[in-house]
Amino acid sequence: MNNQPIGICDSGIGGLTVAKEIINKLPQENIIYLGDTARVPYGVRDRETITKFAKELVNFLINKKVKAIVVACNTISATCLPELQSRSPVPVIGVIKPTVFEVVDNLKSKIIGIIGTRATINSKSYEEEIKKLNNSEIVFSQACPLLVPLAEEGFISHPATKIITKEYLQYFNDKKIDFLILGCTHYPILRNTIQEIIGKSIKIIDPAKPTTKELINILTTNKLLGNNLQPIRHFYFTDITHQTEKTIHIFFEGKFLGEMEKINL
Amino acid sequence: MNNQPIGICDSGIGGLTVAKEIINKLPQENIIYLGDTARVPYGVRDRETITKFAKELVNFLINKKVKAIVVACNTISATCLPELQSRSPVPVIGVIKPTVFEVVDNLKSKIIGIIGTRATINSKSYEEEIKKLNNSEIVFSQACPLLVPLAEEGFISHPATKIITKEYLQYFNDKKIDFLILGCTHYPILRNTIQEIIGKSIKIIDPAKPTTKELINILTTNKLLGNNLQPIRHFYFTDITHQTEKTIHIFFEGKFLGEMEKINL
Repeated sequence: MNNQPIGICDSGIGGLTVAKEIINKLPQENIIYLGDTARVPYGVRDRETITKFAKELVNFLINKKVKAIVVACNTISATCLPELQSRSPVPVIGVIKPTVFEVVDNLKSKIIGIIGTRATINSKSYEEEIKKLNNSEIVFSQACPLLVPLAEEGFISHPATKIITKEYLQYFNDKKIDFLILGCTHYPILRNTIQEIIGKSIKIIDPAKPTTKELINILTTNKLLGNNLQPIRHFYFTDITHQTEKTIHIFFEGKFLGEMEKINL
Repeated sequence: MNNQPIGICDSGIGGLTVAKEIINKLPQENIIYLGDTARVPYGVRDRETITKFAKELVNFLINKKVKAIVVACNTISATCLPELQSRSPVPVIGVIKPTVFEVVDNLKSKIIGIIGTRATINSKSYEEEIKKLNNSEIVFSQACPLLVPLAEEGFISHPATKIITKEYLQYFNDKKIDFLILGCTHYPILRNTIQEIIGKSIKIIDPAKPTTKELINILTTNKLLGNNLQPIRHFYFTDITHQTEKTIHIFFEGKFLGEMEKINL
């Protein structure tokens, strides 16, 4: 079981920011990544559609005999994580709970800002997880739907990206937040722009790190840590264009770390 | 047969600009519109994915016993129209051929600019149709992928939209085009911004009009024009969020013209 792969799924390529962190911290693990590039973005769709698509992703990974599943996508984690967990024989880890635990319990935040897709923000999932840990936290959240296509197009520090980001983030101007959670896997790509606009005094939280920490905890507790000296990393996508490959290179900062294959779900 | 509906399909809600023109010109026709909002946008995906999705759309309309199908989506029209036509018992009309005919044959253009999604531009379908009519035309084309999400979010005359549009259109600065074809159904929403940036001397062509003209020709030739005094207009979508409804109102300029229903494909 130990050397079976870790499964990571995402609505598209955004989850590669999480995959990268997992590969960095667990270099001896086999990895299967599945990105639903044929149907991305999920964050603009309704609950029923997101749940239907997410179940297909998880089924694919279960059939690949993974030992644990990381749902790298905030939208899926916010929309239907319990439904995915209840049908999986292996642990399914979302990004929201570990991130909230990091901010509320470890960093002792008092006022938290969250940005994400419309589906993630409307779900109020971050707020609910925060309430479970500490009812006195104050939370402000803001949907930033255009940041996904801007990141996908590589408009990283483009003037238009700055204007749009500024417009979205001005909501936080009078909120005195201590932390800003990047509640969408695409946003770490725009991290410098976001930090510049929100101000240096506000700590930005990327869910990739706490999620990876939670994965390591679960693998350790269940004695499932792998030790492959030549780990295999396989990246499946439901659609591959020239732009997909280009954006993958942006995500992995120039080096792509495994074999890529197109599949139908 | 005459009072059977006209089917219109699109990757999402962009095709409503075409539906609107058809309803205006053919007010006595029953209409079935199908927008694949669960998987939009198509224009960033690969050929195989677009073809698979498009076949599902056309099958749905055939099962609804339509008398003709208008493929309102430029991306589908550019990618796989012949494959859709060969499997349909009723006429299937794309947007590209009628638009090219309008510009080249009616308006006697010499230098044509085209903007569209990446899939449409990469397909070179507009160029191929133009060559069939007149080999001496000069064509310049430019993909403008971000204009779709900007239009969907209602960023119509937003400063960021102007910056991005200007950046895309600067390619045409030294090309001396006479006409600019809006090769994506979302772009008519941004028409004023596009006209302002490209300059008033360049005539903008919206495929909705020539496509509707072609539809009327085909219905007339085949004696299929309807005469419903109380026409039924049914709008199917594969995903409906609050934002979908909001954007539909932007598209129909405040008045939505028929019943709306969610379906699974």
